[in-house]
Amino acid sequence: MTENKALILAKTPTGYPIPGEDLLIKSSTIDLNAAPPEGGLILKTHYLSYDPYQRGKMKPPNAGSYSQPYPLDTPVINAGILRVISSSSPRFKTNDIVIGYVAFSEYQIVDAERAAKSADQGGFDVLSNPFGLDEKLFLGALGMSGLTAYSSLYEVGKPAKGETLFVSAASGAVGQIVGQLAKREGMKVIGSVGSEAKRKYIVEELGFDGAFNYKSEKPAEGLKRVLGEIGAKGVDVYYDNVGGEQLDAALGLMNDRGRVVSCGSVSQTSLKPEDAYGVKNMPLVVGKRLTIRGFIVYDPDMGPKYTEEHQKNMQKWIKDGEITVKMSVTEGIENSAEGLVGMLKGENFGKAVLKVSDL
Amino acid sequence: MTENKALILAKTPTGYPIPGEDLLIKSSTIDLNAAPPEGGLILKTHYLSYDPYQRGKMKPPNAGSYSQPYPLDTPVINAGILRVISSSSPRFKTNDIVIGYVAFSEYQIVDAERAAKSADQGGFDVLSNPFGLDEKLFLGALGMSGLTAYSSLYEVGKPAKGETLFVSAASGAVGQIVGQLAKREGMKVIGSVGSEAKRKYIVEELGFDGAFNYKSEKPAEGLKRVLGEIGAKGVDVYYDNVGGEQLDAALGLMNDRGRVVSCGSVSQTSLKPEDAYGVKNMPLVVGKRLTIRGFIVYDPDMGPKYTEEHQKNMQKWIKDGEITVKMSVTEGIENSAEGLVGMLKGENFGKAVLKVSDL
Repeated sequence: MTENKALILAKTPTGYPIPGEDLLIKSSTIDLNAAPPEGGLILKTHYLSYDPYQRGKMKPPNAGSYSQPYPLDTPVINAGILRVISSSSPRFKTNDIVIGYVAFSEYQIVDAERAAKSADQGGFDVLSNPFGLDEKLFLGALGMSGLTAYSSLYEVGKPAKGETLFVSAASGAVGQIVGQLAKREGMKVIGSVGSEAKRKYIVEELGFDGAFNYKSEKPAEGLKRVLGEIGAKGVDVYYDNVGGEQLDAALGLMNDRGRVVSCGSVSQTSLKPEDAYGVKNMPLVVGKRLTIRGFIVYDPDMGPKYTEEHQKNMQKWIKDGEITVKMSVTEGIENSAEGLVGMLKGENFGKAVLKVSDL
Repeated sequence: MTENKALILAKTPTGYPIPGEDLLIKSSTIDLNAAPPEGGLILKTHYLSYDPYQRGKMKPPNAGSYSQPYPLDTPVINAGILRVISSSSPRFKTNDIVIGYVAFSEYQIVDAERAAKSADQGGFDVLSNPFGLDEKLFLGALGMSGLTAYSSLYEVGKPAKGETLFVSAASGAVGQIVGQLAKREGMKVIGSVGSEAKRKYIVEELGFDGAFNYKSEKPAEGLKRVLGEIGAKGVDVYYDNVGGEQLDAALGLMNDRGRVVSCGSVSQTSLKPEDAYGVKNMPLVVGKRLTIRGFIVYDPDMGPKYTEEHQKNMQKWIKDGEITVKMSVTEGIENSAEGLVGMLKGENFGKAVLKVSDL
């Protein structure tokens, strides 16, 4: 028998989840030499994705989140890259590298019904990786966060050459892609980040035109300063990953007919209701004719509409070095809770993933 | 010589304008028997329109309003219904009833250049009124506020049968039209108002499904209560005339894929910046996939796109009694400042106009 550790949601957190209290590592055993279920699979987990939406799934049912919460006392779930150890399914053979939404555990036993489904239906797909790119990219730039950035930037942001885009959480999984796509479209790009190292990275490595650190400068002041430095009148597209004070700052500095792509509000999701930030610049939406639009990557006119285009272009652009991807890897299921909370707090630098085992 | 009184902006107001201080009546004289300017007109003013956007024009230049402010020590300007006393223009003859943007004064002297222009270019048009409707309707349901309601409801709100619309300032110039149009489209309609008389009016006279008085009930509670009473899950379209706390309440109770038509924020426009209301429910924009869109009736895809359709349909619907219009008339240029401030404070009941003289 082999030990099979998993990350369990033990309690509904109130603020940031607390490792050892809300999130626990639990161990069970698995017989890797046993036959897989009839028509099913046994999988070994290599990489798991950390994404901000997971905080929304740690809320009580009907708390207003857009998807069902994780049940208590069960493992946290997200996209993963796995290897087929044994297969009784005609769709897979031993050593296939697959992608799918799975429990945060070292191994997975998959029944026939699930093994028959594609990844977007809750099952698995063999990874389609013609250029032999690093597999964990398929959890980031080539996965949900990349598709999120790609679809919403084009569908809502409507990038236009010469215009100015501001993106918050700019070194994060979505932000780094949004900014690089906007640069490719000939936009001026400003990013906000939470550390000096990240600020340097997005300017020096990713070629953003300007950046500020929201922890060392008030967002309204930092954004205004950088706009002046790069000779931009205001913001045409604000790609909002954080909400709160940075949204307010952006609204105050938008150009007429600006677009706000509301992707997330990670600055607000772990706050108690009474601590929520009140956005004061909403009256400017009228006179400036702003559009603010929220979306989820699974909406039909978002991710599904852009899936093929995103895979084709992004694989090529990464291979050609046109798009650079930074990932932040937490090692070992033992450290998975800390990695998850660190991502929620913005401590990761680049797309956050958990490495469960060597691939 | 005849006395010609006018309403003058004497000072930039800080909160609500103060009659006798910020807004003054000034008198001059005019010779009504003199010939009009070569190619020009002399006009007598009958009705003038009061609209919330006028508060934005009492701000200092570059204060972020979307149009140029009124210069100090000159008359306030807005749309009016006037009679031609004498004409040297081929476009007009004596006793024509015309519409155009004019000074708040009893008489107007118009030069040739301006007399040659249409109303939407700063000049005048002879009123096109085939059904002989009350002329002051052309300042309301058949004028800018009606076109505002019509164009934005269809362009942004996208009314759909069976869905629920909530409109604030529901007995006002725009709100009463929005609500009745939505009823025509088969929507459930909820309105908020600032008095019991207005609440009764929109339910009993206009046929709204439900209403609450935001002065006697917290908007979040009132809206929730009325939604329950009419058996609606939430709000699909929020038509926002007021911003602030009611916007926050609506966001909290929107259905997925809801639309917010941002028409105005009259609750906020006369506040000092430090008193501005902070909207706390903005994070819900993401998960609910909301769209919030601001507009100005003059935007090409708004008023201009719908002008013909609006005139044709609305004239017919008013003639046929399908759309009811309530107007709030202040009498006499002497009382024009009080009428303007009353409108800004929501004291009017229906579309606010100033009657300067009998037509």
